[in-house]
Amino acid sequence: MIQKLKYNADGLIPAIVQDASTRRVLMMAWMNESSIASTLKSGLMHYWSRSRQKYWLKGETSGHTQRVLRWSIDCDADTLLFEVEQVGGACHTGYQSCFFQAFSPDGTPLPIDEQKVFDPKETYSA
Amino acid sequence: MIQKLKYNADGLIPAIVQDASTRRVLMMAWMNESSIASTLKSGLMHYWSRSRQKYWLKGETSGHTQRVLRWSIDCDADTLLFEVEQVGGACHTGYQSCFFQAFSPDGTPLPIDEQKVFDPKETYSA
Repeated sequence: MIQKLKYNADGLIPAIVQDASTRRVLMMAWMNESSIASTLKSGLMHYWSRSRQKYWLKGETSGHTQRVLRWSIDCDADTLLFEVEQVGGACHTGYQSCFFQAFSPDGTPLPIDEQKVFDPKETYSA
Repeated sequence: MIQKLKYNADGLIPAIVQDASTRRVLMMAWMNESSIASTLKSGLMHYWSRSRQKYWLKGETSGHTQRVLRWSIDCDADTLLFEVEQVGGACHTGYQSCFFQAFSPDGTPLPIDEQKVFDPKETYSA
């Protein structure tokens, strides 16, 4: 099935990641066929890092893994949605979600009304 | 602010769309700077259609508009998340969400346990 997905010219497909219990959208990252295969085999989210050009097991350094509970493809088979159990926070900044900066409909920035769930300096210092 | 977003080589940025009340992820589509400006001005989701190479007011034909209640940028400023009030269904197939085909973690397809919310033949026949 994963061969039939519509990858972009670089062989990548966007993956939206949602916390299965709170339904909060945590992040968006890119996968290729191999990282999808690793994800399905291990049950843990694996990505392709475009900036580092390498595979990336989410949580490999931080311990903040994402266990897959359910996933879906969209009607065009060019986007994936993973519902996960997130350990710690998803964002490298320490926030639960990468989407911590919100705006009102007209574009006015809203104050960040949440605390960081981990200290990135401590988590990534090893 | 929308000038500072990280658009891809084609001047596009992915937008995840989530139903603000159910928290269900409805779809992912692409926006450019002008479609973001139109969205902020009108309060209704506007996209850039890569296949048709044109602007696209969601619901222009179907009436299934998406009113923005809140939106966010991610930590890298290269992905947007819009929380919307969806009229009708988001998917051109008639389903509420484009992500209607789900799988178990190992990749086994799950039965579609929902009904279509509109008849696409009727909606798009005009």
